[in-house]
Amino acid sequence: MLEKLRQEVLEANLDLVTKNLVISTWGNVSGFDPESGLMVIKASGVPYSSMTVDDMVIVDLDGNVIDSEKRPSTDTPTHIHLYRHFAEKGIRGVVHTHSQYATAWAQLGRGIPCLGTTHGDYFYGEIPCTRKLSADEISEAYELNTGKVIVETINGRSDCIRMSAALAYRHAPFVWGKSPADAVLHSQVLEYLAKMALLDELVDPGIKPLEKEIADKHYNRKFGPDAYYGQS
Amino acid sequence: MLEKLRQEVLEANLDLVTKNLVISTWGNVSGFDPESGLMVIKASGVPYSSMTVDDMVIVDLDGNVIDSEKRPSTDTPTHIHLYRHFAEKGIRGVVHTHSQYATAWAQLGRGIPCLGTTHGDYFYGEIPCTRKLSADEISEAYELNTGKVIVETINGRSDCIRMSAALAYRHAPFVWGKSPADAVLHSQVLEYLAKMALLDELVDPGIKPLEKEIADKHYNRKFGPDAYYGQS
Amino acid sequence: MLEKLRQEVLEANLDLVTKNLVISTWGNVSGFDPESGLMVIKASGVPYSSMTVDDMVIVDLDGNVIDSEKRPSTDTPTHIHLYRHFAEKGIRGVVHTHSQYATAWAQLGRGIPCLGTTHGDYFYGEIPCTRKLSADEISEAYELNTGKVIVETINGRSDCIRMSAALAYRHAPFVWGKSPADAVLHSQVLEYLAKMALLDELVDPGIKPLEKEIADKHYNRKFGPDAYYGQS
Amino acid sequence: MLEKLRQEVLEANLDLVTKNLVISTWGNVSGFDPESGLMVIKASGVPYSSMTVDDMVIVDLDGNVIDSEKRPSTDTPTHIHLYRHFAEKGIRGVVHTHSQYATAWAQLGRGIPCLGTTHGDYFYGEIPCTRKLSADEISEAYELNTGKVIVETINGRSDCIRMSAALAYRHAPFVWGKSPADAVLHSQVLEYLAKMALLDELVDPGIKPLEKEIADKHYNRKFGPDAYYGQS
Repeated sequence: MLEKLRQEVLEANLDLVTKNLVISTWGNVSGFDPESGLMVIKASGVPYSSMTVDDMVIVDLDGNVIDSEKRPSTDTPTHIHLYRHFAEKGIRGVVHTHSQYATAWAQLGRGIPCLGTTHGDYFYGEIPCTRKLSADEISEAYELNTGKVIVETINGRSDCIRMSAALAYRHAPFVWGKSPADAVLHSQVLEYLAKMALLDELVDPGIKPLEKEIADKHYNRKFGPDAYYGQS
Repeated sequence: MLEKLRQEVLEANLDLVTKNLVISTWGNVSGFDPESGLMVIKASGVPYSSMTVDDMVIVDLDGNVIDSEKRPSTDTPTHIHLYRHFAEKGIRGVVHTHSQYATAWAQLGRGIPCLGTTHGDYFYGEIPCTRKLSADEISEAYELNTGKVIVETINGRSDCIRMSAALAYRHAPFVWGKSPADAVLHSQVLEYLAKMALLDELVDPGIKPLEKEIADKHYNRKFGPDAYYGQS
Repeated sequence: MLEKLRQEVLEANLDLVTKNLVISTWGNVSGFDPESGLMVIKASGVPYSSMTVDDMVIVDLDGNVIDSEKRPSTDTPTHIHLYRHFAEKGIRGVVHTHSQYATAWAQLGRGIPCLGTTHGDYFYGEIPCTRKLSADEISEAYELNTGKVIVETINGRSDCIRMSAALAYRHAPFVWGKSPADAVLHSQVLEYLAKMALLDELVDPGIKPLEKEIADKHYNRKFGPDAYYGQS
Repeated sequence: MLEKLRQEVLEANLDLVTKNLVISTWGNVSGFDPESGLMVIKASGVPYSSMTVDDMVIVDLDGNVIDSEKRPSTDTPTHIHLYRHFAEKGIRGVVHTHSQYATAWAQLGRGIPCLGTTHGDYFYGEIPCTRKLSADEISEAYELNTGKVIVETINGRSDCIRMSAALAYRHAPFVWGKSPADAVLHSQVLEYLAKMALLDELVDPGIKPLEKEIADKHYNRKFGPDAYYGQS
């Protein structure tokens, strides 16, 4: 069942290693199938070196594991919540990593400012950091509440297409896209941007965000109605 | 047509990956053939992993695509403008990347100061950052105007041989050379220098540029009339 | 004798290279066998490229070499002292490296603050830096005294399970775990955290430690009595 | 002639690439043969990818090329001067690179302070930066004068055994050792130290050098009369 999606999710997970976004058993990628309403996600705590398609666990959006003895990623409730809110906009892949520069921003409790066209090519405006969860939100249903605060953060200022990432406060990034591979690409770009923004912040702590006219130009030439980047 | 140049431009594009100057489909290299007046450039949005010589698109200096269904790089008008102004000085290759340290300087809106002989060996003086484009220059013919502001910046203080790179304001570097491979080398050196200069700027924000007598010595022993670097 | 442990210790030593934690002949991993009371440790000054199981020297906890002509690592007395105090809690592997970011903190004479969940997932609270050794402690039995000051530091504020690393003042990290491989993983995570914490410290020198409720949640979901990370 | 040394020097040069100390045609390693009084050094401007033993040029200490059409490294007069002064102490290899962190210190015009035992294990005290050369010293016999100012710097405060590296002011490091390979190792360690010291300098610009008793202990346990590091 869902063999194609499981293969896709496996490859996307392995790609996190190739792109230097994870070490050890960290990180996870999921994919969502809108027809069946099912999600595929990496099993919890599995090393990348020996990962196979059998480690890709099918889960429904109530969190029930389908046909597997394996326990899905601890972060499954976060992924589920994101699909519940973002799938209708076309989101089909979610990624969580602790990539170093993006996580350094999350640890600061700060969003990543848009400082140049590299950022503007993929993300429209500042990549936000969520608020801190309350003690109650942490002690009960922590992973679900992490999903909730991400949706709250995104919907409060943008939408999940123009802003396909958020930093969980003092934790790490969650990133999404139109496929598992697209979400991995956004994770890689996020880490790339996070490094450049941190360097700029160190050189000039008062640096201003990218001017709106340039941000609009770059975002729209790739994703706007008259986009002219790539092959038609 | 232009098979040798297309092969050369393909190899130069692939070299951007080897030298860690690009990720995903980012960046582009072009080459110019002065006899035919034609340029070869990477097709837009093509992944490096599957790139072949067929993705190297021939374009004339009016922007017309010759014998190809593929759309050339979005940055084609910038490349064309640089050849229109720099080809007479012998420029035959142009490179655009978003390499991280050079781009961090571009995002700061600052040129890269010459702080040592490594810089002085390749670039004579500060590698300049262009002015910001006006709202009109951004909304219409953005890529052409990017080329114009680069030429304006270079010709306003140096020439395209002694200064073979410029940072587009809050965007990223454009670099050129006597061949596509030479332009890639300059891009790699630029990134190398940009990192060292940024580290020095962090340690000592008041650091002074390299003394002129040392800059002259190093530039001239490689490129001056009595150059004595390399094999004769 | 102890062939399995020697093989394990060899692989853990070689893994220091793979994980970019050592250069040259630097670093060492040991493993402890509680039944025989013997320890296996890398020979002193041996290059990783030609290392074999014969370079894994058996030593008893009085420092006597068993059945080998090779001299064990200079740091052997430190390792011995750690097993003497931590083995009863289940520690079976010890690692010493000069990994760059962790060592940068040691050189500052400062512990690594817990700034996010990545840290909290593995180490409970600040990873401490030892006090400076006295001139006498340095001139006589330096390596033994290094072990003593680490045990003093850990037992003074935590325990060797919740805090499986310490920075030797102006020297470098010592790290331990439930096996040689586990200690190497902790060393890799330590270096990863040390980089992120240093970046955050540069951006915000007044940054506060991670809130206790988040630290507890992350540590406990991996290692607490009701841990739910990984496969059961 | 000198086939063994030429092979050794070739391998040491190639090792600069493996150890990420050079890009392009940068850097050079030489070796000295005390019996013949001849030196072997990399030819000028040769790419590493196609380098062979034929690119290793024999030169006498008056700068005459022996049996080769190739032009030796531009920095040959610097190497010669170092052997003229340091060979009697046993120096047999000299390396010049523009490795990034060491060069960042040279560009600052500052020596690299000894901040920890990693430094103390190899270099006794601050790795010095030379004074600036005068305009005359730059315009005439620049490379020879670079050698002179290095010898002046080292002999003014230490000796070439305890301090086997110097930073040429606003240029880059020169490093030496008891063989070409030893000099390459020292270059690698220098770069490693330079990075850690720069990070520490950024976090704490007032950081104090390593306490003398620890520096002495570490240097002496490796190189002192009662050294006990490595195999006997």
